[in-house]
Amino acid sequence: MGSRIDSEHPRVPAQARTEARTEARNKLFLGSFVHSKALDELDYLHDAAVCVDKSGTIVAVERDCDEAKARETVLPRLGWDADDVEVVRAREGQFFFPGFIDTHLHASQYPNVGIFGKSTLLDWLNTYTFPLEASLSNPAKARQVYTRVVRKTLSHGTTCAAYYATIDVASTNLLADLCLAAGQRALVGRVCMDQLSPDYYRDASAAVAIADTRASIAHIRAADPSLSLVRPVITPRFAPACSVALMRQLGALAAEQPDLPIQTHISENKNEIALVKELFPPHTTGAADDSYAAVYDATGLLTERTILAHAVHLTDAEAALVAERKAKVSHCPCSNSAITSGAARVRRLLDRGIACGLGTDMSGGYSPSVLEAARHAVLVSRHVVLAPGGEERDKLSVEEVLYLATRGGAEVVGLEGTVGGFEVGMEWDAQLVGLGQIGEDGEVVVGEGRGGGEEEQGESGDVDVFGWESWPERVAKWVYNGDDRNTKRVWVKGRLVHQRKF
Amino acid sequence: MGSRIDSEHPRVPAQARTEARTEARNKLFLGSFVHSKALDELDYLHDAAVCVDKSGTIVAVERDCDEAKARETVLPRLGWDADDVEVVRAREGQFFFPGFIDTHLHASQYPNVGIFGKSTLLDWLNTYTFPLEASLSNPAKARQVYTRVVRKTLSHGTTCAAYYATIDVASTNLLADLCLAAGQRALVGRVCMDQLSPDYYRDASAAVAIADTRASIAHIRAADPSLSLVRPVITPRFAPACSVALMRQLGALAAEQPDLPIQTHISENKNEIALVKELFPPHTTGAADDSYAAVYDATGLLTERTILAHAVHLTDAEAALVAERKAKVSHCPCSNSAITSGAARVRRLLDRGIACGLGTDMSGGYSPSVLEAARHAVLVSRHVVLAPGGEERDKLSVEEVLYLATRGGAEVVGLEGTVGGFEVGMEWDAQLVGLGQIGEDGEVVVGEGRGGGEEEQGESGDVDVFGWESWPERVAKWVYNGDDRNTKRVWVKGRLVHQRKF
Repeated sequence: MGSRIDSEHPRVPAQARTEARTEARNKLFLGSFVHSKALDELDYLHDAAVCVDKSGTIVAVERDCDEAKARETVLPRLGWDADDVEVVRAREGQFFFPGFIDTHLHASQYPNVGIFGKSTLLDWLNTYTFPLEASLSNPAKARQVYTRVVRKTLSHGTTCAAYYATIDVASTNLLADLCLAAGQRALVGRVCMDQLSPDYYRDASAAVAIADTRASIAHIRAADPSLSLVRPVITPRFAPACSVALMRQLGALAAEQPDLPIQTHISENKNEIALVKELFPPHTTGAADDSYAAVYDATGLLTERTILAHAVHLTDAEAALVAERKAKVSHCPCSNSAITSGAARVRRLLDRGIACGLGTDMSGGYSPSVLEAARHAVLVSRHVVLAPGGEERDKLSVEEVLYLATRGGAEVVGLEGTVGGFEVGMEWDAQLVGLGQIGEDGEVVVGEGRGGGEEEQGESGDVDVFGWESWPERVAKWVYNGDDRNTKRVWVKGRLVHQRKF
Repeated sequence: MGSRIDSEHPRVPAQARTEARTEARNKLFLGSFVHSKALDELDYLHDAAVCVDKSGTIVAVERDCDEAKARETVLPRLGWDADDVEVVRAREGQFFFPGFIDTHLHASQYPNVGIFGKSTLLDWLNTYTFPLEASLSNPAKARQVYTRVVRKTLSHGTTCAAYYATIDVASTNLLADLCLAAGQRALVGRVCMDQLSPDYYRDASAAVAIADTRASIAHIRAADPSLSLVRPVITPRFAPACSVALMRQLGALAAEQPDLPIQTHISENKNEIALVKELFPPHTTGAADDSYAAVYDATGLLTERTILAHAVHLTDAEAALVAERKAKVSHCPCSNSAITSGAARVRRLLDRGIACGLGTDMSGGYSPSVLEAARHAVLVSRHVVLAPGGEERDKLSVEEVLYLATRGGAEVVGLEGTVGGFEVGMEWDAQLVGLGQIGEDGEVVVGEGRGGGEEEQGESGDVDVFGWESWPERVAKWVYNGDDRNTKRVWVKGRLVHQRKF
């Protein structure tokens, strides 16, 4: 992609570019590495080396190891050809961090980010969302929007995204193709909705929804047979928009294809919850009670492969059921604040052992950045503390939200042990983070010439490091003021998929 | 400043620069202009012209006026030499917007942005804040930090800032000098605190505090005799850190020098409020009751020139008193969330006719951006809606928070009618805002070559305009995803004080 842009807009120096080169060299990463060791603890590796083989798998993590030592002891041990190793250095002040996992976003709603007025969920859907989603059956518009969303999220360090597309099969498949081409790990879901949505944007029947879902699954299985980069995801939009028949058939489809995840929404908004109770009295589903979670459970959709977005207002009984079924939760704080859904008590979910990740939930959420979601998760957790029933321990720390953004997200999308950290056997989904260094004169000191004459460190955005900060303080500065300018390069499965040019 | 950087770092293309050139030409601004007409209404002027004379004053605002028409009818009317007019065009999609007014921030705490852990106000002060503030008595460090803070806030479109410095006179004066040199409108306050703070960082007595405050006032009056750009501001830190004697003497000083504003904090945190009640029983101040506001009122500090930061937990009686005294409020939502202070019910203050502006409150607040404060004011207002006693009407709209960031802020800092909007007789404190335009291929279309071959529009950050958005939607996109990359140029009193180079 980058080269095509270069030739078409040769005078555009200020544009972040996404590169999707095919590379198959062994790689040696050197410098500082930061990743989550536990929910509340980051591990800092300095002067370290990480070796990533041609398949993108981490094969060595060495502390106290510079290039000479790596060449002397590690490369021979790996049996690598020392002349054919790509060396990537984090400069002074830079660090490698696992790629972010966006566990919930609607690629199709991207053009509406920031556009929601004072609406809440149900009027927001009808006023802003359904018209835009429906319009993406236009292939040119779908290509424009999906190209942009993949590039934009990659530039923010999102190495894996759980996407909702639309009900349209062709453009959903296009989104999967674009992710594959750009090298972004993705779950791509063709949205199912056969009721309570406008005539112009609704599955004609449960049967049509299932057939179209199967068609999209087949396309993605053909495009990425190992499902190692892009996977189809079974996507009932949310209970109110699905008939019981449709939910049951999607549950059966999930049982039939056990390598596929499921994603949907739950308990985002109080009016929505009331609507679910009204639409699905227990006798219609055979559910144990009239709760939202019970509807999904009764229709075969509450499984350990299920990603539940929001979970803002789950009752204790529902949380217990979610935990029992080992379903996962995508916490979407920006969205929940923006459209006045509420403040999820994440600690309560974590305490029950429920795997939680972060979602941008564009465009209920306004930002493409998982870092913004992490920042806002911290802030919202402080409002939870102050709300009735809130406790000091509801506060989420910087370390905790970074865990949610990486390891937590990996568990949510079914990639635990594959991505989210820097361990031997995991795949190299990572970002190189650079922060601004302030010199004695109050100006940014750019790292030019350091690290062997590589490209400029570039603009550092709002993160200003004065030099006396500890590493945890630097990371906190990144979480609170960082943006895509700090994400210098991004890799997925060892492949460079984004690089800032300035 | 910019040119010095250019020569020292000739290979640094990615650095935003602040320029402080002295210019005294008449200026003709052309294009789209957006500013607040009322609290909940923005005025959009397209194909308009604004004329700014050599003193920086707006002398004409013409709708439906292009350059030819301006030259034909407006310039002659103004008696301007048509050959000596600087023409500044907003390109397609760009617009001029009033400069932001940051009604509350601690310049001295800037290096600590994002560093606060899980602390709340009182432990945050002792752990993070006092040690840093005390260290700025080192002139070199003060120059480094204050240079950076002025440049950083200008780059975010902050044309006027109400700064707290430290108790140190020399470095407080340096901050004022740096603002003058950079061309940023500012209130600069030498902080007064003679009790309940550590030995290493406290005024030795009320008398010392007053003498040092007078010294700083004298310095700034000498540096800017008309106080038209930089003004001293009488700054009792907050009641708990001030003896009654000190507050009384500062009240008397304010009465003696009626051209000076006052700034302090109020009702930020519940423990702080309890501390005020404990420290200042009514008999010690002669206050009407034991409320926080009454302490300031009894000591002569609650005036129409007073800027009260936070006001999160004001009682109805206190709000009534604040309104009666015509004191102003600086709403600091980022800070209030970050250090778990609470969520201010801004609507309740506005309903009483209290003038409200926005404050970044660095470093209780984590961000240097008033736009971030505006965005977070919207989000926090939605948490207010959901809190006990909250109502739908507590929601703040995009239009309302932009009003607070401009006209509201102007009223708070005593510059109502001087800045905050585009009206004849007001001064040209403005920013040129540019948003990203997305082409059919999903790439950013940069405005190269348009508008007469001026410099590139440059990187547009996270704001992606697809083309079909209405102007209010574009502005909403800016509020939700904008950052300093969208602030292309900044003027104060007609003088260009910041320009992005890319």
